Amino acid sequence: MFDVIKGDLEQLEERLIEAVSSPEDELVTEVGTHLVTSGGKRIRPALCLLAAHGGPAFSLAHTLPLAAALELIHTASLVHDDVIDKADTRRGAPTANAKWDNKIAILSGDYIFARAFRLVAENDYGDHVANRLAQLVGNLSVGEIIQDKQMYKAARDEADYYARIQKKTADFLEICCELGALVGGMDAAAAEKLAEYGHSIGMAFQITDDLLDILETSEQIGKPAGNDIRQGIVTLPVLRALAVSPAREELLAIVTNPAMTDEMVARALSIVRATDGAAFAQAKAEAYLARAKEVLPEALPEEIRDACEQVADFIGQRNF
Amino acid sequence: MFDVIKGDLEQLEERLIEAVSSPEDELVTEVGTHLVTSGGKRIRPALCLLAAHGGPAFSLAHTLPLAAALELIHTASLVHDDVIDKADTRRGAPTANAKWDNKIAILSGDYIFARAFRLVAENDYGDHVANRLAQLVGNLSVGEIIQDKQMYKAARDEADYYARIQKKTADFLEICCELGALVGGMDAAAAEKLAEYGHSIGMAFQITDDLLDILETSEQIGKPAGNDIRQGIVTLPVLRALAVSPAREELLAIVTNPAMTDEMVARALSIVRATDGAAFAQAKAEAYLARAKEVLPEALPEEIRDACEQVADFIGQRNF
Repeated sequence: MFDVIKGDLEQLEERLIEAVSSPEDELVTEVGTHLVTSGGKRIRPALCLLAAHGGPAFSLAHTLPLAAALELIHTASLVHDDVIDKADTRRGAPTANAKWDNKIAILSGDYIFARAFRLVAENDYGDHVANRLAQLVGNLSVGEIIQDKQMYKAARDEADYYARIQKKTADFLEICCELGALVGGMDAAAAEKLAEYGHSIGMAFQITDDLLDILETSEQIGKPAGNDIRQGIVTLPVLRALAVSPAREELLAIVTNPAMTDEMVARALSIVRATDGAAFAQAKAEAYLARAKEVLPEALPEEIRDACEQVADFIGQRNF
Repeated sequence: MFDVIKGDLEQLEERLIEAVSSPEDELVTEVGTHLVTSGGKRIRPALCLLAAHGGPAFSLAHTLPLAAALELIHTASLVHDDVIDKADTRRGAPTANAKWDNKIAILSGDYIFARAFRLVAENDYGDHVANRLAQLVGNLSVGEIIQDKQMYKAARDEADYYARIQKKTADFLEICCELGALVGGMDAAAAEKLAEYGHSIGMAFQITDDLLDILETSEQIGKPAGNDIRQGIVTLPVLRALAVSPAREELLAIVTNPAMTDEMVARALSIVRATDGAAFAQAKAEAYLARAKEVLPEALPEEIRDACEQVADFIGQRNF
C-alpha cells in the first residue's frame, strides 16, 4: 500500500528509536525502544509522509521529525491507555505497565509526549504545527473522558457516536494529513482538502474497527468478540439495532448493564447480527471513503493520489 | 515576599482557570479547576514573572501565558505523581485519583500538559521557549525514573543526590527564571545569570525540603517525619550520617531495607539527628542561596533585585 513511501518509513524507524533514547538513563531508553518497536502500523506518520510528498516543496529531511512526532504522540497515548485499562498485552507484546509497572509506564508516556514536542520545537515548523499537536493531545484526552462518561449509557444519538470517534481517531488522521501537506509546501486550500481526506478515512477507519468487534469471531480478531459491548462502548451497529430490532428493549437492558455476563454479551451480539446494523455501519464507512477519494486536491501528483486512494480501499477491506 | 508581582499573580489565577476550561466537557473543566485551585504556592510562575520584570521590555500580557504554562506543567506532573504514589490528598485537598479515579487523573494530567504547550504555541514565544519546556517535561520524567531506581540503594555518592534534585527541582526553577528573563527582553548573558540564580535557589529549596523530613516532628509538617527514609529516598543529611556516624552500618541496613518498620524509621532518624547531617545539609543550602544572590545580574532594577534576594532568604528560613 505504501510503496511510494517505503524507504521513508524505514528511515522513520531509526528516527523513532533515536527520539526515545535518553543519554541519561538506560532504563528510559529500554522502555522507549520497547514501546516504539512493538508493532505499530505507522498509519499516522505514513499519512503525514504521503501528504507531504504531494506538496511542491517536499523534503524528506524536513518531514521525518514531524512524522516521528505524530507516531510518538500515538505511542504515548496508548501507553497511558494501557495503564488505565490495566492491559497486559498490545499487538502481542507486553505493555509497559505489565513489563515494568504503572510508575514506569506513566512517566515513560510523559517522556514520549515531551520528546514529540521537542522534535517539533527543534525543527522550525512554526507555531501552527506545535499548536495543532497540542490541540491533538488535548482532544485525545477529552475524547477519552467523554467516552468514559458515555459508557453503559447507550445514548441513542448517532451524533454522539460520530463526535466521539472523531475525537478518538478522525481528528488525529486529519492532523497528520493537514500538517504533512503544509510541511510539503501545499497552500492552505489544498492542505484543507487533505485534512478532509484524513478526517474521512479516520471516520471510516474507526467505524470498520468497531464493526470487527461485532462481525468477526474471537479467533479472527485475537480478543473476545463483543469486547466493546462488554466495556459499555456502544458502536454504530448496536445503535442501529437499538433503533430497528424487535428485541431492542432486551438489547438496551444488556448494553446498559455494567454487570453483564458473557451470556448476555453473546445474546447482544446475536440480536445485533440479526439486524442490518453491520450493513448500515458498513455503508456509512463506504460513504466516508468515497468522500475521502473525492476530496483529494486536483494538483496531487498521480502516484500520490493513487496511494491515497489505495489507503482508502485498504481501510474498506478491513484486512488489518 | 512577592509584593512587586502581587497584582500579576492575581491575574495569573484567572489565566490558569481559563486555560484548563474545556468548552467541550464540563467534567474536564471541573477536574482542571479543582487541580489549579488546590493551594499551589505559585513559586514557578512567580519566579518567571519576577525575572521578566527585571528585563528592559517587560510586558505583563506577554509574560502571563508563559507563567501559566509553567504552573500547568508543574500541576500536570503532580497529578501523575499522585496516581503513581496512590496519594489521597495533596495540600489538604483530595487528589484527582481520589476524588475521581486513575483514568480521569491520568487523562487530565495529559490534558493539562497539552494546554501548557498550547499556551506557548499561541503566544509567539518562538521555538527556544517551546523546546526548553519540552526538555523540562522530559527531564521531570527521567528524574523520577532515576529516583525510582535509586530507591533503597543508598548510593553514598553526593553527586548522585545533587544530580537527582537538580532534575527534580532545580532545573524547573532555572527554566522559570531563564525564560522569564528572555521574555522580558534580557540579553542572553543576563538570562544565563538569572538561570543560575534559579538553579541555585532550586537546589537550596530541595535540600531544605529534604531537611524538613529529618528535623521537624510529624505534626509540624503534616505528614510522618522520616517519610523519605521510609520510601527509600536517601537525602543529604542521611548521606552525611552514612559517612560520619558511629552507627553507620545500622543506618545503612535500615535505609536499604524496603520492609523497614516504623521503629526502624524512628531509629534511623535518631541516628541521623545525632550527627551533624542536618547542619551539613543546612550549610550546603546556605551556600547555594549565597551563590544565588551573588549571581544576580548588575543591571537588575533595585526592587526586582530586592525581591529576588527575599526569595532566597525565604527559602533559607524554611517557613513554608
